Amino acid sequence: MASVRLSELAELVGGELVGDGDLEILRVAAIDEARQGEITFLVNPKYAALLDQTDASAVIVFPGVEVEGLSLIVCQNPYLAFAKILTRLQAERPAPQGVMEGARVAPSATLGKDVTIYPGCVVGENVTIGAGTILYPNVVLYDDVVMGADCIVHAGCVVREGCRLGDRVILQPSAVIGSDGFGFAPDGAKYFKIPQVGIVEIEDDVEVGASTCIDRAALGVTRVKRGVKLDNLVQIAHNVSVGEDTVMAALVGIAGSTEVGTHCTFGGQAGTAGHIKIGDNVTIGGKGGVSNSVGPNQVLSGLPVMPHKEWLKASMSFSKLPEIRKDVNRLKRQIDELEMKLKER
Amino acid sequence: MASVRLSELAELVGGELVGDGDLEILRVAAIDEARQGEITFLVNPKYAALLDQTDASAVIVFPGVEVEGLSLIVCQNPYLAFAKILTRLQAERPAPQGVMEGARVAPSATLGKDVTIYPGCVVGENVTIGAGTILYPNVVLYDDVVMGADCIVHAGCVVREGCRLGDRVILQPSAVIGSDGFGFAPDGAKYFKIPQVGIVEIEDDVEVGASTCIDRAALGVTRVKRGVKLDNLVQIAHNVSVGEDTVMAALVGIAGSTEVGTHCTFGGQAGTAGHIKIGDNVTIGGKGGVSNSVGPNQVLSGLPVMPHKEWLKASMSFSKLPEIRKDVNRLKRQIDELEMKLKER
Amino acid sequence: MASVRLSELAELVGGELVGDGDLEILRVAAIDEARQGEITFLVNPKYAALLDQTDASAVIVFPGVEVEGLSLIVCQNPYLAFAKILTRLQAERPAPQGVMEGARVAPSATLGKDVTIYPGCVVGENVTIGAGTILYPNVVLYDDVVMGADCIVHAGCVVREGCRLGDRVILQPSAVIGSDGFGFAPDGAKYFKIPQVGIVEIEDDVEVGASTCIDRAALGVTRVKRGVKLDNLVQIAHNVSVGEDTVMAALVGIAGSTEVGTHCTFGGQAGTAGHIKIGDNVTIGGKGGVSNSVGPNQVLSGLPVMPHKEWLKASMSFSKLPEIRKDVNRLKRQIDELEMKLKER
Repeated sequence: MASVRLSELAELVGGELVGDGDLEILRVAAIDEARQGEITFLVNPKYAALLDQTDASAVIVFPGVEVEGLSLIVCQNPYLAFAKILTRLQAERPAPQGVMEGARVAPSATLGKDVTIYPGCVVGENVTIGAGTILYPNVVLYDDVVMGADCIVHAGCVVREGCRLGDRVILQPSAVIGSDGFGFAPDGAKYFKIPQVGIVEIEDDVEVGASTCIDRAALGVTRVKRGVKLDNLVQIAHNVSVGEDTVMAALVGIAGSTEVGTHCTFGGQAGTAGHIKIGDNVTIGGKGGVSNSVGPNQVLSGLPVMPHKEWLKASMSFSKLPEIRKDVNRLKRQIDELEMKLKER
Repeated sequence: MASVRLSELAELVGGELVGDGDLEILRVAAIDEARQGEITFLVNPKYAALLDQTDASAVIVFPGVEVEGLSLIVCQNPYLAFAKILTRLQAERPAPQGVMEGARVAPSATLGKDVTIYPGCVVGENVTIGAGTILYPNVVLYDDVVMGADCIVHAGCVVREGCRLGDRVILQPSAVIGSDGFGFAPDGAKYFKIPQVGIVEIEDDVEVGASTCIDRAALGVTRVKRGVKLDNLVQIAHNVSVGEDTVMAALVGIAGSTEVGTHCTFGGQAGTAGHIKIGDNVTIGGKGGVSNSVGPNQVLSGLPVMPHKEWLKASMSFSKLPEIRKDVNRLKRQIDELEMKLKER
Repeated sequence: MASVRLSELAELVGGELVGDGDLEILRVAAIDEARQGEITFLVNPKYAALLDQTDASAVIVFPGVEVEGLSLIVCQNPYLAFAKILTRLQAERPAPQGVMEGARVAPSATLGKDVTIYPGCVVGENVTIGAGTILYPNVVLYDDVVMGADCIVHAGCVVREGCRLGDRVILQPSAVIGSDGFGFAPDGAKYFKIPQVGIVEIEDDVEVGASTCIDRAALGVTRVKRGVKLDNLVQIAHNVSVGEDTVMAALVGIAGSTEVGTHCTFGGQAGTAGHIKIGDNVTIGGKGGVSNSVGPNQVLSGLPVMPHKEWLKASMSFSKLPEIRKDVNRLKRQIDELEMKLKER
């Protein structure tokens, strides 16, 4: 592993260097685990006291934080700086391996420069794979898939026929792209399957979590836009559209034909009904359920969702409900008695 | 792609033809995307205005809908007609490929006529596969699996030992059939694994979503009956029975030994306790939680579930809870004061 | 299948034999399905009547239960005895097969004695696999994975680079170990991926369900401790720690950096916020949501969680909320009227 000079790291993140720029930094480490040659970071002030005991060689801090005896990179966004420095110090991308023995690539497939296709992968007819993309073992691309450059597709992923991925898309293991949408026409008591002949389009810089499923459209396109980040075990149903830079935590479910705005955030296990619209910059709390369209710039929680602060207050009162009920019943009796007394007079 | 005459499509769906039966139809398209040579459909009256601008050659409509300048197929169930016409116009089932190079099939396996087994599949000892069934790449069938005719098993699915599937079963990618049920006997603070020696039986015409898991029984059978449709990421625990034509949306969980009736509908992220019974024709709303047995012919929501309409009303009042609480406290003070005043007199 | 004498089974579970110890027992079966040569068990007294009609040769019972005409094994924990006897009667572990044709194992990998590696498996550089471990077809182990002895890894599982598993770990099909944690640093409206350079450590005797995902740590270790049992479709986020003998039902989600105590139980679809601590011996009811740290030895339910009994009572009152609201409004009017009347006098 190669080390990098602290001055170079400060420059990389646009930070101010305080101390010894010639320090050679090998790794990033958590504040309570860092050793000599490592850089750590202080994002949460409540851990500041740990800096007195750290063995780190340097630390990334907000402006105004003073640390004795340690070299500093001072910047406005230490968390982002940490991410960038960690990326820089990572082992370089492995050398491309080409199509490895045990991979099966259809002769009609078009492979870009410097691709790596591990054993056990099966690449169908007329597939296009961009330069620098890596398919880890046992990935399956059905016919007519188009995949951009510098994608990373982890082991066991499946991309079904005709789906399209942009550049720098990352699929964690066992992600499924382009499974049939869940569409059936009632035919008496039985159901008749509606062929799902659309596709999925995933734009640049999207990350898809392990075992997350994105269904192909019935007709047309299920669309996941630039920069979207989906955690593990998320369900995106057919004909959904997810706006740019939207983030969904694990076990979220978005039902069919729903349109999610840009820069939204979904907490774990949240869900939405189908055929609704969620505005831009909406945050849905964990386990929240959205049953109707909601406008932009809101924080919502509950089932069905309401403004988060309202929900917090209502939740605090929920356990008092039996007591309230008793109180109300007692009040009814008291009032009846009062009314009686007044009549008697 | 071959086209089909409009008159033939009208006959296929038992609809009335209005206009030019000789029109050659190539594809089905959404009402706002359809072009010349395509047929579209009008199911929701709110989209009727779009018919004025469509470039479609024909449209499937309910009786009583009039459209100028377009040929029509008029029928009672346009949505079902759409599904049937889309199925007819689909590319034909691909020609069978047999056991392709790179697939591994145990010599003791019995394969029906016209099967297709893609590279990377592993088929165990004594497996039986019916005629016309397709295994996409990297499917694994453990020993003694029995699979019917005309099944479609997508890439990465796993069917464990001894499980049985009927005819025309569809498994979306990475579905898991026959994983061990979650059974452990407490042994002090530790748990002792109970061997799961039962199987899963899936009847005809069932569809199982991507990454959906159906556990084998501890003893006996986990049963998914004819026509059941399971969406992605659904959990069916050991010894569950799911009745005919029941439909479950994504991320639903049915706990062990629960018996679900026929023609039920589960909204997304709904769940049930174990060892209970759910009657026929029950609908559980999204995120609903069923903790006790429920009778047939009901629509239920909430946690635990209650009649849907009751739940809707209660939910509408939920955000008012803090206000109600304040009101009750104020009422208590007012009554105390009133009682005081009355005493004073 | 070999049979075992009843006396040997009684000895195995430390139970008292009543009846014919020479009976040869072939299988375990449910009380309503058992036949000659089979042993069944009575755990739930409500099924006692079935014993009159069973064809079983023997039955495992609590002390004090009398059954005419059947041989008995009498013990304090019939359920555990059932599990142990079922394990004993199971087909023996299959004979080791070594590295089978069609598996790819890097030359630098170290394999213990008596391993079995099925076709389609891909084992990376410097992997270590302990004696007796079985990899079913199409398992992928990335570089530097360390796996203990007597593990069972079912088809389609993926273990990413550097993750470590103890002895006797069981992974159900398509489990994913070591996927990237969900970590992104905001960079304006966009997100910058934080490299996830930690690992997952799974200790001895852990079972991981089908399609369950355990993310690698950002820095450091995501830890699943000895004896933990995770059901299907569970999400364990980065840097989580799950304490010994903790059990989680299907579709549970534990958010990042949360620390779960020993011997906890999570009902299906429950979830927790990130960066919190859950004490030992905590039970979270199905669909429960834990948003703050909670102390040990509690049973909690609801969203956010509260003591289970409180939640039960509050839930019972929930459907009465609209009625309570009406009552309160009526009480307000009544009180206003009373106050008026008093003033008038």
